[in-house]
Amino acid sequence: MKVQNQNDKNVTMFESVELGQVISKQEFKGQEPEIRAQLLALQRELRDANIATLIIVAGVEAAGKGDVVNRLNKWFDSRGVQTHAFWDETDEEKERPDTWRFWRRMPARGSIGIMFGGWYWDPLRERANGRIDDVDLDEVSRAIGEHERMLSLDGMLIIKLWFHLSKDAHVRRMKKRHELQKHIKGLPTEGAGVETYDEYLIAAERCIRLTDSGECPWHLVESDDKWFRDLSVARVLTSMMHQRMEEHRVSDRRMQVHEPTIPVDNHPLTILDHVDLTASLPREEYKKLLKRYKARLHELAWQAYAAKKSTMIVFEGWDAAGKGGTIRRMTSAIDARLFRSISVAAPTDEERAHHYLWRFWRRVPRAGYMTIYDRSWYGRVLVERVEGFAEHYEWMRAYREINTFEEQLVNHGIVLIKFWLHISPEEQLRRFKEREELSWKQYKITEEDWRNREKWNEYKQAVKTMVEHTSTGLAPWTLIPANDKLFARIEVLKTVCEQLSDVIETN
Amino acid sequence: MKVQNQNDKNVTMFESVELGQVISKQEFKGQEPEIRAQLLALQRELRDANIATLIIVAGVEAAGKGDVVNRLNKWFDSRGVQTHAFWDETDEEKERPDTWRFWRRMPARGSIGIMFGGWYWDPLRERANGRIDDVDLDEVSRAIGEHERMLSLDGMLIIKLWFHLSKDAHVRRMKKRHELQKHIKGLPTEGAGVETYDEYLIAAERCIRLTDSGECPWHLVESDDKWFRDLSVARVLTSMMHQRMEEHRVSDRRMQVHEPTIPVDNHPLTILDHVDLTASLPREEYKKLLKRYKARLHELAWQAYAAKKSTMIVFEGWDAAGKGGTIRRMTSAIDARLFRSISVAAPTDEERAHHYLWRFWRRVPRAGYMTIYDRSWYGRVLVERVEGFAEHYEWMRAYREINTFEEQLVNHGIVLIKFWLHISPEEQLRRFKEREELSWKQYKITEEDWRNREKWNEYKQAVKTMVEHTSTGLAPWTLIPANDKLFARIEVLKTVCEQLSDVIETN
Repeated sequence: MKVQNQNDKNVTMFESVELGQVISKQEFKGQEPEIRAQLLALQRELRDANIATLIIVAGVEAAGKGDVVNRLNKWFDSRGVQTHAFWDETDEEKERPDTWRFWRRMPARGSIGIMFGGWYWDPLRERANGRIDDVDLDEVSRAIGEHERMLSLDGMLIIKLWFHLSKDAHVRRMKKRHELQKHIKGLPTEGAGVETYDEYLIAAERCIRLTDSGECPWHLVESDDKWFRDLSVARVLTSMMHQRMEEHRVSDRRMQVHEPTIPVDNHPLTILDHVDLTASLPREEYKKLLKRYKARLHELAWQAYAAKKSTMIVFEGWDAAGKGGTIRRMTSAIDARLFRSISVAAPTDEERAHHYLWRFWRRVPRAGYMTIYDRSWYGRVLVERVEGFAEHYEWMRAYREINTFEEQLVNHGIVLIKFWLHISPEEQLRRFKEREELSWKQYKITEEDWRNREKWNEYKQAVKTMVEHTSTGLAPWTLIPANDKLFARIEVLKTVCEQLSDVIETN
Repeated sequence: MKVQNQNDKNVTMFESVELGQVISKQEFKGQEPEIRAQLLALQRELRDANIATLIIVAGVEAAGKGDVVNRLNKWFDSRGVQTHAFWDETDEEKERPDTWRFWRRMPARGSIGIMFGGWYWDPLRERANGRIDDVDLDEVSRAIGEHERMLSLDGMLIIKLWFHLSKDAHVRRMKKRHELQKHIKGLPTEGAGVETYDEYLIAAERCIRLTDSGECPWHLVESDDKWFRDLSVARVLTSMMHQRMEEHRVSDRRMQVHEPTIPVDNHPLTILDHVDLTASLPREEYKKLLKRYKARLHELAWQAYAAKKSTMIVFEGWDAAGKGGTIRRMTSAIDARLFRSISVAAPTDEERAHHYLWRFWRRVPRAGYMTIYDRSWYGRVLVERVEGFAEHYEWMRAYREINTFEEQLVNHGIVLIKFWLHISPEEQLRRFKEREELSWKQYKITEEDWRNREKWNEYKQAVKTMVEHTSTGLAPWTLIPANDKLFARIEVLKTVCEQLSDVIETN
């Protein structure tokens, strides 16, 4: 982003803020009480409006980011503020997709999170040090943009601050810091010191340009003078927070849908009608195959563990399609130390205080382990859509959000397998009746199941749209004919074994 | 625990269950429907009563623990059950006290948690392999007993199952398993195989004896015959769960207080009256010392990081005693990447679904980091006691629970520093009035503060009891005279610096 100055010399975006702006301590102190009162009032308004605020503090090393954060902790009511740095990655974090460690620290609705560097830290340092190239940086920047937009559409206020220092000032401060800290052992460097100042700024400019959006704009802050710097921060914060509250008063930001509208046709014929529900398996054959595949799966699970390959297996399907029974046959083959099975129920209040994907990020398995989901994040576009628990604009967005989520999982090397267990309405009715009769199955059948059944066609349309939009090359759906339980179980086991062998053999 | 059999030969507790009990598959299958229906009904009752159930599955290797867990997942409604194994410790776990990884996986009220080995796994294996001795094992067993009692008094139903195999059966099964699994790479061993069978049982007998209590008894299950084994498990579970519900119907288990009753005297003179509230510091001196201690603390925080020493600093004190301001002076000296400050507010629903210490365990810092608490677990014996949020029997128990908690922290090598910031009622009044006048301080003063003030004497008694019972050699309280804010801040900084230097220098 080059702009022309009056002398017709090219300036970078950063030079455009090297204006030598200075204010006196006295002037700053004079304004501070008013600033504090304003920020506190805004913090309270955002809290009451249940809006999460994320402040990303990025920029040149030694620009005083730590001091700014201290100031913010003084200005705000610190009871609603959490600060996070991401420089010292744990193995639990390394074993999951990159974004996991940020999801872990995401501010809840009504609270403020301050992140040092946030998701910008790593890519900028890596680019400055030449470990990734511009194509990689662009790719990461695109992903960051998408991520921020998702959070923003979920209601979050994201304020991104870039603290700039001219090269001279940077060199001077780094020298001074070095002098002060040279006797401290074990001090890590940000990896963006004096030697790579130019490269760092070139990378930053590129990344800022690509992630500077209407929803989540960047704010460049000249940081040579600390009083001017902190006053600038105060102005950005009050204006962004104020604006967010104004917006909140007139409309719900979450209602903005930028996705192409998904035409909801009600054509009765869907992909599900092509599932051959007559498929079946004689019991003798089933017993033989079950034994064979269980032995194979037992082995594969250990091999995946040894190869540090994680697996996530999603089960969706009609009520009474046999998800639970199939999962049990599968898990009984796997060493209990290697898997976790999760039944997705109503979210807790901590979960409700975040983007709906947060609770699934929470449970992403460590390297080498399996997680098996009895229902999943697809609830958003199935039950939440049909029952109206999610608004139209929420579930419409979800297809893309889910695809991005799954892309991150798969790109990290996680094996993701998604099953839809399909049965006919007649078979469901038969099973419901059976459940009502057998004492140990009665808990499985509720009024709700009967109500859901009445919405068969609506669910069918939801499944159609779901499969159309989320059966991607990276993470395809496997539709399982499940009128015959034995056939379904073997199909599932076979699919899992095949996918795992593929991955382990090519490893 | 030797018992005499008819032939006057000594038998161990384990031999006493080597009875060769066998039932037929047919008999088992005949009883299973009834068992399932019973267990499901009990699971629902316990869920509705908001009681957590913890099932610990321990015993001889190859006794079929995994198969039992699979069976339980079939019998119960798996939506309320989570299974956990603890064999593959992460670094995040290694960096915290041993019990942290169990607290992480503790079942919430109303749900069932199944733990493989649980807290018995490590000590038994270590003892069998001779890496710890009997004294260590006794010490661990004592701690386990205390831990289980605490959970039990909090309402949890703990069911401990020990699966026993005679040596012959064990050797036979281990051989067979080895045959089946020999081509799988990366298979971990439980460390309690054929070679250490005898040592493992000797250790287990000792530990079982020490942890076999009325509240949390052990159940030995003969495991040679799988049908008999699983039927035995079903019988133990139904009887324990049934008994817990019966107990729940007549009384609240949490009301049992076994601690010596703490006499609550209302003598007006307490340790707080010995705090010299006239202590003060001239501003010039303050400025000089503040600068000195901040520089020192900055350095010490980095040294502690390098030495992998964690620090937890607790701030308690009267409203308006200056906790926030003191914390800010302290944190502004520490690199923001090294500390986290936590303001203790109302618990979330996930937190309420666990023992009250759970939410503090959640936030125990990693090795090398600091956590600073603005209010803490002492809320239990201060505000919760005075305001009646905790019952008498709950806060009475808390002193001991807190001492045990802190003992675990300190024994792990965490530096724990506890401050009580003390001011006079007159000084508090002055500060309340000041807060009402200054716009940026108004948020700090609420109706509640005025109400709390009226209970000054009750709070004073609560502080007295707290200090008497929790100012232990391992984790003493530091009472800070805080009528003069400058004096208080320097005292705190000085104390923290001294404690950190002590630890780092002796490291």
